[in-house]
Amino acid sequence: MIVSLILALGALSLLVALAYSRRVSSVTIESGAASDEEVARLKEISNAIAEGAMAFLKREYRILALFMGLFAVVIALTVNDAHVDFNTGLYSAACFIIGAGASVLSGFIGMRIATKGNVRTAAAARKSLPAAFSIAFNSGVVMGFGLTGIAVCGMILLYLGLGAILPAGVEQHIVMEILSGFALGGSSVALFGRVGGGIYTKAADVGADLVGKVEAGIPEDDPRNPAVIADNVGDNVGDIAGMGADLFGSVAESTCAAMVIGAASFAVLPDDVRTSALLFPLFISAVGIVASFISLFFVRPKSEEKVESSLKNALIGSTLIMVVGVYFASIKMLPETFQLGGQTYTNTGVFISLAAGLISGLLIGLITEYFTSHRYKPVREVADASKTGSATNIIYGLSLGYNSAVLPMLLMAVTVVLGFSFAGMYGIAMAAIGMLGTIAVGLTIDAYGPVSDNAGGIAEMAEMGKDIRKRTDALDAAGNTTAAIGKGFAIGSAALTSLALTAAFLTRANIPQINMLDPQVMAGLFVGAALPFSFSAMTMRSVGKAAFDMIEEVRRQFRTIPGLLEGKARADYATCVDISTGASLKQMMAPGILVIATPLLTGWLFGVQMLAGVLIGALIVGVMLAISMANSGGAWDNAKKYIETGQLGGKGSDTHKAAVVGDTVGDPFKDTSGPSLNILIKLMAIISLVFVPFFVNNGGILLKLFGK
Amino acid sequence: MIVSLILALGALSLLVALAYSRRVSSVTIESGAASDEEVARLKEISNAIAEGAMAFLKREYRILALFMGLFAVVIALTVNDAHVDFNTGLYSAACFIIGAGASVLSGFIGMRIATKGNVRTAAAARKSLPAAFSIAFNSGVVMGFGLTGIAVCGMILLYLGLGAILPAGVEQHIVMEILSGFALGGSSVALFGRVGGGIYTKAADVGADLVGKVEAGIPEDDPRNPAVIADNVGDNVGDIAGMGADLFGSVAESTCAAMVIGAASFAVLPDDVRTSALLFPLFISAVGIVASFISLFFVRPKSEEKVESSLKNALIGSTLIMVVGVYFASIKMLPETFQLGGQTYTNTGVFISLAAGLISGLLIGLITEYFTSHRYKPVREVADASKTGSATNIIYGLSLGYNSAVLPMLLMAVTVVLGFSFAGMYGIAMAAIGMLGTIAVGLTIDAYGPVSDNAGGIAEMAEMGKDIRKRTDALDAAGNTTAAIGKGFAIGSAALTSLALTAAFLTRANIPQINMLDPQVMAGLFVGAALPFSFSAMTMRSVGKAAFDMIEEVRRQFRTIPGLLEGKARADYATCVDISTGASLKQMMAPGILVIATPLLTGWLFGVQMLAGVLIGALIVGVMLAISMANSGGAWDNAKKYIETGQLGGKGSDTHKAAVVGDTVGDPFKDTSGPSLNILIKLMAIISLVFVPFFVNNGGILLKLFGK
Repeated sequence: MIVSLILALGALSLLVALAYSRRVSSVTIESGAASDEEVARLKEISNAIAEGAMAFLKREYRILALFMGLFAVVIALTVNDAHVDFNTGLYSAACFIIGAGASVLSGFIGMRIATKGNVRTAAAARKSLPAAFSIAFNSGVVMGFGLTGIAVCGMILLYLGLGAILPAGVEQHIVMEILSGFALGGSSVALFGRVGGGIYTKAADVGADLVGKVEAGIPEDDPRNPAVIADNVGDNVGDIAGMGADLFGSVAESTCAAMVIGAASFAVLPDDVRTSALLFPLFISAVGIVASFISLFFVRPKSEEKVESSLKNALIGSTLIMVVGVYFASIKMLPETFQLGGQTYTNTGVFISLAAGLISGLLIGLITEYFTSHRYKPVREVADASKTGSATNIIYGLSLGYNSAVLPMLLMAVTVVLGFSFAGMYGIAMAAIGMLGTIAVGLTIDAYGPVSDNAGGIAEMAEMGKDIRKRTDALDAAGNTTAAIGKGFAIGSAALTSLALTAAFLTRANIPQINMLDPQVMAGLFVGAALPFSFSAMTMRSVGKAAFDMIEEVRRQFRTIPGLLEGKARADYATCVDISTGASLKQMMAPGILVIATPLLTGWLFGVQMLAGVLIGALIVGVMLAISMANSGGAWDNAKKYIETGQLGGKGSDTHKAAVVGDTVGDPFKDTSGPSLNILIKLMAIISLVFVPFFVNNGGILLKLFGK
Repeated sequence: MIVSLILALGALSLLVALAYSRRVSSVTIESGAASDEEVARLKEISNAIAEGAMAFLKREYRILALFMGLFAVVIALTVNDAHVDFNTGLYSAACFIIGAGASVLSGFIGMRIATKGNVRTAAAARKSLPAAFSIAFNSGVVMGFGLTGIAVCGMILLYLGLGAILPAGVEQHIVMEILSGFALGGSSVALFGRVGGGIYTKAADVGADLVGKVEAGIPEDDPRNPAVIADNVGDNVGDIAGMGADLFGSVAESTCAAMVIGAASFAVLPDDVRTSALLFPLFISAVGIVASFISLFFVRPKSEEKVESSLKNALIGSTLIMVVGVYFASIKMLPETFQLGGQTYTNTGVFISLAAGLISGLLIGLITEYFTSHRYKPVREVADASKTGSATNIIYGLSLGYNSAVLPMLLMAVTVVLGFSFAGMYGIAMAAIGMLGTIAVGLTIDAYGPVSDNAGGIAEMAEMGKDIRKRTDALDAAGNTTAAIGKGFAIGSAALTSLALTAAFLTRANIPQINMLDPQVMAGLFVGAALPFSFSAMTMRSVGKAAFDMIEEVRRQFRTIPGLLEGKARADYATCVDISTGASLKQMMAPGILVIATPLLTGWLFGVQMLAGVLIGALIVGVMLAISMANSGGAWDNAKKYIETGQLGGKGSDTHKAAVVGDTVGDPFKDTSGPSLNILIKLMAIISLVFVPFFVNNGGILLKLFGK
């Protein structure tokens, strides 16, 4: 029964995505645009963006295919659970490939709909704001529900498939361990999506800004700027494909973590109760689809000012519905009491853990908004500090970021304590799943942002006029706030997911405790703490390097293409797209290898105790760094926008110029290094979980060598 | 025997300080200056600086006296070891007051000699570079040896005093626990010294730069700038008194930590061996005095280029001598084998721990130099990135800082593993003591920097001419590099000291292990990780706020004092000094309270397990943040200086302007927030150690309330 229910809700999610995709497609560009020439211009621009985006994806996926193939071989050869008489590594590798494929598919769908929706939003903006809004929003729905549907259907089908293929009587925790390969696949794709996409988008953005806005003095998204198409491609590559892969990974990972932990505990239950208890984590995601779907109907902004609150209401609404939903789910599907690690817990306890995750996720989102929206004091202080120049703007922005990470961290501490107290390690996994419960609507709102942003860029490039641009700007402004909320939420859920995965890893490795005073654990904590800093340094420099290449190219075009700056000749957009693509794919390798190699080498050479230290060290440092970077970046962006509304001297003033410096520094902070850290902390933990059979058999060889 | 030896070497240290102080005083200003007017000008300026510095110290110490009195009462009332029949809190409180007094005395001596040495260095620069160098260096010697002598003599005298006062037969570990009050006193003074001093110096510096250099276009240290005296006062307040109090605290804390841990183990030894084993940590500091003293004779720079290498050789020389010294000390003074926490360790193991600390300290210093000196690639990259504006300068500088923290962190991980493997928790404390072994010469070099810096400022203000300024600049440049080394070293030793204190705290609380999977410990880690970010945000904003006040005042003077900018009227320096003093003392309260209240409240409400989590979380995050902030700041400073040598367009170019922004951002990074984090991690740990009897009896009341 539960299996069909999950499958049905997963299918519902896919159907919603399909239906909304039709809605977007059904609106033609012609129906909005003012003239045939405008239609032609719009089509030309949007084709260039779509082609650039697809070109990037194809090149990225080609590299990925090679990498994933290699990694799958490593999994197949090294991972093998000694408790069964077949090679579990082969199955893990297969799940890994399927997970990677599902993530690629999700990214692909998202890109397709985003590059379709952006130009239609721009065209519809000529008609009315609500018309434009609904296209951008519907594009987001396709992404949100499509991705959630693929994740849920993928996992339940794999579970059924494994049940059919694996020898009868295999213990459930082995099945779940194998299934974790799916999450690893998804997360590995996310690594490259987030890091590569993040470098791509910011190299183009920084490059376009520094030469176009600062040196040549032409406005943002001006068609004369050769990097402008690359910049718009970047929004899709980073914020759509990258963000999607990230959250796809989180859903898969938190579900697998919970199922691995649960399997150990629920094995003793009678058959009928057992399956529903085992699949409970997946069912929660399915319930989230319903809650998210209902909340879609709250989103009907009547006017410009209502766009943002309307989106926020959907998020709050879905959270409230979800709290009710998970209550009944917990009561109905879980046994009243169950044993875990020698303790007895109740189904109400599981509900409390889920609710703690849900609510703290929402609160973290709202805190993020407070620190990054220019309606509140913190961002206004940063804007104010720009009066004395860019140095004080930077100092205030950095300190805002540091400060903004404190409350979310305390909230997570409370959530962890609640989850653990009421349902042990299972509770931590449940808190992560709770936080990700409303992912379908969350991702909808996230994806809405870059579509609106792109629509604005297209309107500018197609010279549709100020009125149209004003409408798309209103949509974009709302998108910026919700994007900030989404980022806070992505980091929070990544932290809990990583903790849940670490818990699952330790459960499977049969390690009941990690003594912090053990020198290996302590050394692990030190190494783990250093990782996010090393990783951020790499990704920030990568953006710098890639941006330098872009700057050189833009300067070259301004210099060598006669009539370009006067608007008489056309810029060579394709070369800029190529440069961003090549540079980002090259630059993503080193940080990628760092994240993958560290847990593998640590576990292999020094064993699971040190590995646990590394995971926790990287987690706590990574979360603080990620939140502070994302929020500093968001605040700088909005401080600049606040000044652009005419405050403190307005656009063109010295204060504005100072604020632009902060905004540029914030670009790699908020869109490259910050979000990439999510993947760092999650990926290291899921690698540890999938490779646990290897570490248990062959881990710590260096220590064994020295006879410890 | 050992007692008299330690006392004798401590006295030697004080004698060295006294002798060098005479040497500095014996050189009159008249002997160097060119004319009577110059003498008068020099005296006027140096008096203004000295008065400003003393005025700050007096106001700071008045606030401190109140605070220390209060804190002493809290200690006396709450701390009481239940194992003995007298109130240990009273003795702890007395030790606390004496420690605070000793630290105040050290700061006072340092300030006196620095404000004497700076003007004499400037005057002597007219004679020759070696003459000027030797005065600046000798002033440093007074600080380095004076402070080390006070620390060593203070502790040994207190130990003797406690032995005489306390009832006979009191166990040694109780004595050592009481003695830790001394370290707490020193560290509490350091908190205010570092934070208040750091805010003072940077508020003046940022304020002077932003209005003077950027707005009015007058050079640094120009006498027309009203904030210029405050800026020079700040160098003394922050870099002399603050740094001195910080390292005084580290020496006292690491020694107490080692003695507390050792006391538990050495109690079983026969009387004669026991005392030397117990006092071994203090003896190592005494040996360091000898090693440092010998290395002073290596410092004889023959020419400008040799100043820096000469200083570095002293540091390397003293480290090598020290390795030999600690080898014989370990073999002679410790029993061949001893028991600790159920394990057997050897005296060779202790030597290895000490050597690991010594060598990794030196390596961390050299790594810091690599990342902050413009002779190497990293800083040149930052300078290069300034070509595309301040945004890329900031991005590269931040990423340099992140990167620079990785290797030191890994070195510390190795040191911890070595120390722990060879001598358990005692080994960690030994590594900290080893790293601080050459503190006398280290501090000499540290204090040399601000004296030279001040000499340059005085030469400029007294209009002594370009040639003289060139000489002082050469001295200052060498001082910058060694200051960077000193900072790396201060953070590294703070980290190990904090770890040693945590180990001592857990030893005394009788907690053999801290399970990271315990939800309280986990929550503690999260809270601890958030602390350094919160603290840094506070201190950075404090600098911003205080700098705003300064900017307003400087602008007011430029506006209202007729003829000031033309050099015809005199600026009102005193008001600027007052503003910096008042603002810094006000702004230091909140971060100070955060650092002191957090461990007390955590231990009291949630118990020692969570407190241990907080300590470790704050430690690993704090170290990463501190190193990266200090090095980003140092790199920005030197990137600017590199451009000022004529590279990349030189002074006044757009590239230079971009680099100035980074330098300004770096000011609070490297001189306020970064170094203050040292105190944060150490102070929380020493508070935990001193209050351990309170936590053991009354800790975790909230948990008890909920029946856990």
